[in-house]
Amino acid sequence: MKVNGIPYRSLWPAADAAVEIIDQRSLPYAFATRALRSVDDVIDAISTMAVRGAPLIGVAGAYGLALAMRRDAGNAHLADAHRRLNASRPTAVNLRWALDRVRAVLAPLPTAERADAAWLEAARIADEDVELNRAIGAHGARLIAAVHARKGKPVQVLTHCNAGWLATVDFGTALSAIYQAHDASIPVHVWVDETRPRSQGLLTAWELAAHGVPHTLIVDNAGGHLMQHGDVDLVLVGADRVSARGDVANKIGTYLKALAANDNGVPFYAAVPSPTIDWTIDDGLTGIPIEERAASEVREVAGLDPQHRRATVRIASDDTPVSNPAFDVTPARLVTGIITERGVVAPGELGSLFPERRQAA
Amino acid sequence: MKVNGIPYRSLWPAADAAVEIIDQRSLPYAFATRALRSVDDVIDAISTMAVRGAPLIGVAGAYGLALAMRRDAGNAHLADAHRRLNASRPTAVNLRWALDRVRAVLAPLPTAERADAAWLEAARIADEDVELNRAIGAHGARLIAAVHARKGKPVQVLTHCNAGWLATVDFGTALSAIYQAHDASIPVHVWVDETRPRSQGLLTAWELAAHGVPHTLIVDNAGGHLMQHGDVDLVLVGADRVSARGDVANKIGTYLKALAANDNGVPFYAAVPSPTIDWTIDDGLTGIPIEERAASEVREVAGLDPQHRRATVRIASDDTPVSNPAFDVTPARLVTGIITERGVVAPGELGSLFPERRQAA
Repeated sequence: MKVNGIPYRSLWPAADAAVEIIDQRSLPYAFATRALRSVDDVIDAISTMAVRGAPLIGVAGAYGLALAMRRDAGNAHLADAHRRLNASRPTAVNLRWALDRVRAVLAPLPTAERADAAWLEAARIADEDVELNRAIGAHGARLIAAVHARKGKPVQVLTHCNAGWLATVDFGTALSAIYQAHDASIPVHVWVDETRPRSQGLLTAWELAAHGVPHTLIVDNAGGHLMQHGDVDLVLVGADRVSARGDVANKIGTYLKALAANDNGVPFYAAVPSPTIDWTIDDGLTGIPIEERAASEVREVAGLDPQHRRATVRIASDDTPVSNPAFDVTPARLVTGIITERGVVAPGELGSLFPERRQAA
Repeated sequence: MKVNGIPYRSLWPAADAAVEIIDQRSLPYAFATRALRSVDDVIDAISTMAVRGAPLIGVAGAYGLALAMRRDAGNAHLADAHRRLNASRPTAVNLRWALDRVRAVLAPLPTAERADAAWLEAARIADEDVELNRAIGAHGARLIAAVHARKGKPVQVLTHCNAGWLATVDFGTALSAIYQAHDASIPVHVWVDETRPRSQGLLTAWELAAHGVPHTLIVDNAGGHLMQHGDVDLVLVGADRVSARGDVANKIGTYLKALAANDNGVPFYAAVPSPTIDWTIDDGLTGIPIEERAASEVREVAGLDPQHRRATVRIASDDTPVSNPAFDVTPARLVTGIITERGVVAPGELGSLFPERRQAA
């Protein structure tokens, strides 16, 4: 996607054995890139959410293994880098999937060939992510077009967190559908949940504004009220991990929006590339680990001060106990459909759409 | 309740023809009081939320009429002050109720007697509010005690917004129950929703900390996840207006918590003094006006800067379209019970608990 007219991916290999990323902690206030030169740099970028979004952290992890192999391609270092990268964020499954895939390529190779092979495999995963998202967007855009054909008015989509191109290598998952619908001249308006505590909704608003898609920022509390009053035609979110039976782990608060959608007859879709599906877990509520993040994310809010400088205010003192679960799980019964690169299916039908993956698990 | 050991109400008449309030915009960062000397001062305090909470703005409105009568006790001025005060916040019904009550007292009186009579009636409403809240707290505390008796472990209560003593003249509504349970040595822990955009959860955390009640601050997105994992025994909130059939208008986001409670078998109670019940409206979803507040509430977040000075950061620019509905309506079907000064009833039984009010409407 373009930033100020220049096409960007959210992550790309650089000439000098580094991986460049858009530092998402600076957005939407400033556009900054950062070079990651070691596995520690990648772990730091993932855990501080300089890179974020399940598909993107998978690719970042793959490049992390490639950077590790440049330093030391031995089995011990490979195992150590795999373990440490995998622990940097526990909920999204794409990270484990990408790390396992790169490791499987490297394991049979002599150490001298591992660095180049890892670099190549990471690039393949990145390119595939772009293609998966393009396909997801095409399927999702058809859903939006169908609502427009039925309704004859702009389609009102509510989204939570950021499932845009910043959360992937390019295009996004949920937002890929919105971009493709918008580009096909289907009128779409997006309700953008703020998504406390990290306010990734601001990234979504930034993306949508850059692409010219009409949108309105709302607090996380508002979506139910909008649905009660017929102001939402569909809810469209990404996911960090989807269980084999279709339970959807996504940013904390997604479950509340799914409940409101269900209560008001609003379809709820998750846009999910297949590497986000964890075929080893059936019950997402008990099986998917939920990351508990730092209390400072709740206690402090970042923005711009009156002089337009980056600033942080503290809304609660260190004395105030805080809990900060970063994800929740929406049970499959509340999910209308899962939008994958192979098409849109009811959550219970994921296995028939990917029979070879289900069997492999 | 006490602040630094000194007993306070949230509003009290002062010697020099003024009404003193705790300025809630300064909390939890600083404790400041403010004198209101005219009807315009009262309107400003209500609309900027220096005073807030349905019961408290009712009392503030009553004192506003008293201040108006001190200046000019004529019929035209009475009608004008009533109209302007009533428009200062549209959703809570206590304001209209209190204004109507004072006006009904004043109307038959000669103008020379109106100021004193209004002052007296406002003081009566304030004192009655304290007694209503004490009774509500006693009924609510019995609910909490019953959970504790059954469970034998600390009772986990989730609350949204601030329904504490700051939202009333004293004691609070939902928090009155928690204070009385805590004071009766029933172990209670409170999950405190942040309550964006105005973050009234910080007022709740401040109140609970001052009273020594264990609590944990969470973002508004987290409550559903906690309920899914059995970490909430009951949801207890206040209300800004309750319809005759028991639909509950309360701070935006309450409906989402009621849905999650319903989905997880967690009882959902609203603590409601009878002046909060609007007997003229049956269907709260269509009948209760929902205030749309300024976009700046969403775009800006107030707190303390690193030097502990009050500061505001802007998280979204003026270019970002914002919608900011301040309340939502939880349908009666999601409400387990309404805690009133006369006891706890299912929402559909409100009319039998207050037969004389229902008939008068």
